[in-house]
Amino acid sequence: MSIASRKFRRRLAAICSSVIDDAERLAVYESDGLTAKRQLPGLVAIPQTVAEVQALVRLCADFAVPIVARGAGTGLSGGATPLADGLLLSLAKFNRILSVDDEGMTAVVEPGVTNLGVSEAVASKGLYYAPDPSSQIACTLGGNVAENSGGVHCLKYGLTLHNVLALKVVLADGSLVAIGSGALDSPGLDLLALMHGSEGMLGIVVEVTVKLLPKPAHTQVLMAAFEEVADAAQAVSAIIGSGLVPAGLELMDGPAIQAAEAYAQAGYPVAAGALLLLELDGGTKDEVHQAAEAVQALLGTAQSMTWAESAADRQRLWAGRKAAFPAVGRLAPDYYCMDGTIPRRELPGVLARISELSTQYGLRVANVFHAGDGNLHPLILYDANNEDELQRAEQFGSDILQLCIAKGGTITGEHGVGVEKINEMCVQFSPSELTLFHGVKAAFDPKGLLNPGKAVPTLSRCAEFGAMHVHSGEEPFPHLERF
Amino acid sequence: MSIASRKFRRRLAAICSSVIDDAERLAVYESDGLTAKRQLPGLVAIPQTVAEVQALVRLCADFAVPIVARGAGTGLSGGATPLADGLLLSLAKFNRILSVDDEGMTAVVEPGVTNLGVSEAVASKGLYYAPDPSSQIACTLGGNVAENSGGVHCLKYGLTLHNVLALKVVLADGSLVAIGSGALDSPGLDLLALMHGSEGMLGIVVEVTVKLLPKPAHTQVLMAAFEEVADAAQAVSAIIGSGLVPAGLELMDGPAIQAAEAYAQAGYPVAAGALLLLELDGGTKDEVHQAAEAVQALLGTAQSMTWAESAADRQRLWAGRKAAFPAVGRLAPDYYCMDGTIPRRELPGVLARISELSTQYGLRVANVFHAGDGNLHPLILYDANNEDELQRAEQFGSDILQLCIAKGGTITGEHGVGVEKINEMCVQFSPSELTLFHGVKAAFDPKGLLNPGKAVPTLSRCAEFGAMHVHSGEEPFPHLERF
Repeated sequence: MSIASRKFRRRLAAICSSVIDDAERLAVYESDGLTAKRQLPGLVAIPQTVAEVQALVRLCADFAVPIVARGAGTGLSGGATPLADGLLLSLAKFNRILSVDDEGMTAVVEPGVTNLGVSEAVASKGLYYAPDPSSQIACTLGGNVAENSGGVHCLKYGLTLHNVLALKVVLADGSLVAIGSGALDSPGLDLLALMHGSEGMLGIVVEVTVKLLPKPAHTQVLMAAFEEVADAAQAVSAIIGSGLVPAGLELMDGPAIQAAEAYAQAGYPVAAGALLLLELDGGTKDEVHQAAEAVQALLGTAQSMTWAESAADRQRLWAGRKAAFPAVGRLAPDYYCMDGTIPRRELPGVLARISELSTQYGLRVANVFHAGDGNLHPLILYDANNEDELQRAEQFGSDILQLCIAKGGTITGEHGVGVEKINEMCVQFSPSELTLFHGVKAAFDPKGLLNPGKAVPTLSRCAEFGAMHVHSGEEPFPHLERF
Repeated sequence: MSIASRKFRRRLAAICSSVIDDAERLAVYESDGLTAKRQLPGLVAIPQTVAEVQALVRLCADFAVPIVARGAGTGLSGGATPLADGLLLSLAKFNRILSVDDEGMTAVVEPGVTNLGVSEAVASKGLYYAPDPSSQIACTLGGNVAENSGGVHCLKYGLTLHNVLALKVVLADGSLVAIGSGALDSPGLDLLALMHGSEGMLGIVVEVTVKLLPKPAHTQVLMAAFEEVADAAQAVSAIIGSGLVPAGLELMDGPAIQAAEAYAQAGYPVAAGALLLLELDGGTKDEVHQAAEAVQALLGTAQSMTWAESAADRQRLWAGRKAAFPAVGRLAPDYYCMDGTIPRRELPGVLARISELSTQYGLRVANVFHAGDGNLHPLILYDANNEDELQRAEQFGSDILQLCIAKGGTITGEHGVGVEKINEMCVQFSPSELTLFHGVKAAFDPKGLLNPGKAVPTLSRCAEFGAMHVHSGEEPFPHLERF
């Protein structure tokens, strides 16, 4: 029995009225934001109710058909890359905000609601939903949960995980369970965090209860320019180490500044070696003002400092940052956006090493990233039509991730693992740890039908990749010793 | 093969030099803070190194001997209640602070370090560890992780889970794994939250990396007295609903006020029907001052408001709250401290219902609890020597927990499930959800040797308990309809 069988298709059609099976319309779903990996899905189903999702999952279990759940398809690591023999399950029709509790400051939403849509729906009540991925106009809450998405403001307000209170999830056997609660703690095993970043491998999220926050009464944005990236990186360490918690703290290097300025005319100093954009927010003017003074005192090495004078100024400064990815994208036919995390104190050294690798691989790189979190986003510039450049770009990216691990960091900050970084998982985790992941996965999905092949590599794949697991502080990965 | 076999004891002695097997010394370990449940452990081992823990776990696996891990034994739900045929594994000798990173604001500690010990060790650097259970002088980090402990300041700073970055854990097969990282996000499945509150059922924590915070520069404490509990409860909703996040927000009812005042002479108004203690903290004086003004404006129904004038004043006001449990304990031979959580808006109704139940069961009750979190701690007064009172107290407690569930809350706030609330788990969770817990447990511990019988009930136990699972918003549990 397979997805191609007439019996499967007949039963599928009986469950769900929106099924796509022609190549032209299937092509819309051939990749998510990781466009380097393309695959036509076997079939696409777009259910409308939880009961339909449950029936689809049961049907696929009966026919041993794998399921890939998909939100808006904006994910950058290929978590929603389809399978040729699988059903792509789109949650696009789950786009309603079910309820808003002003007093409790929570909202219950369907997984297909956009990230920005939540904030827009509660804006009139002076509330908002804090996590803000760059793709927030398009990306949806279900995908945010699946990838544990971040954003500029996660430094202060946390990732998706820290802003979700409860989920309703369809399990691999078609049963519907509630996970988490409005309470600070939940009895039993904490499966809520486990669902976050699990990339559709444990269940299909059909309802999300999010935490809302009151919009901050006062905001200030600072732009500080530095001669050297290392100076900016040290300033980041100094600010965070002082106990200040900016709402956002972003770093851009020279190439990123120049590209963003050319694209967005944000008023950035194009001669600077590095730029920090720092946002402070708070309930009172004085609180924000005092924090601003404290920040200023820690920026001794800055060439210049500019505080946004107005809301329009603030918007202009952020517009450059928000446009940085497409702006850098104009510098070369293609770019590869990496996502790794390191302890902040390692920023100067790691950025210097990325610069050396750039020379070594003969590929330009621009850095624009969440410095306060130590969450790197090196953008490697290359030409995908040049097979050699493509290979060099991929190897360069892999080197960066392994460097992150060696410095005590991780191979993802907010983009997830998907298919993109599955080999590096072999470096990040020991066989015991990977075995544990597989055990937990099997507890949720004994038949292995939910998004197989993503996020957690098999041990044999790791053996093939030739990876040697290394924990920070231990002897580094042999490949890294060549650095 | 069992714990009684000479071979097991010989091998145990070869691994670990501290083994207790005489009844008199075993008696020290016969219960944790849930003293109503007592059981002599088969044996006690007090290992000194991670390698010893690994070897002990492997030995127990070979002999199918269950293991109960124990920290300081201050837990209130019987998570560390011993097993007659099991090994009690004390982590008492894991009491070193391994490293402190000032700049990164983290510390790596062994699980036997006390909660307060962490803050004391970093106090000279202006840092502290935020979660603060009442037992913080004695309770240890390993136990804090196992029960996901809270405290007064969890309203602003979160539970143990929100203040731990990484763990090292010995698994059921004796392997050592690292879980979590210093990074905001971790790739792979999020097992860090899963370990929190898992009550020693998934592994033995042997190292904890905690987040430290800078000590707040400014603090204010307010005492507000109310005629009625309902007024105080409504004030709590108003404060939290306004977006203010106090560092602590505690409510005491009349009986608790009177008992605490008689015990600690904190200056509480003994004629009041309810008292709120509210702490504000922040980086600047103005910020705290403005928050204080905003709070004051929301306390229209208060009979009186008193701001602490000095550090000594603040300490005095908190001393009454901290002494409230032992103070209430003087009112009757025994008291039963419940722990459940409800949405804050349900506080007035639930407190009124608890008062009715108090009359119905003929047992006095005092309430002193983390109101800001909706985390109830009704203290039921009874005499354990009176079998009928004991039974009524237990039934009263169970009714309160089921009431919490019916109102959309949970059966635990910060004390865990242990053996105490295992029956109520049948009400909180559906068979599908419990099956999922068992599956995850089996992934970590296929032989079921790590703290069996705690936290997650078997489905047959639930059938015996006669529970019918109910999610908030659905038809209530039949038993509750009698309320």
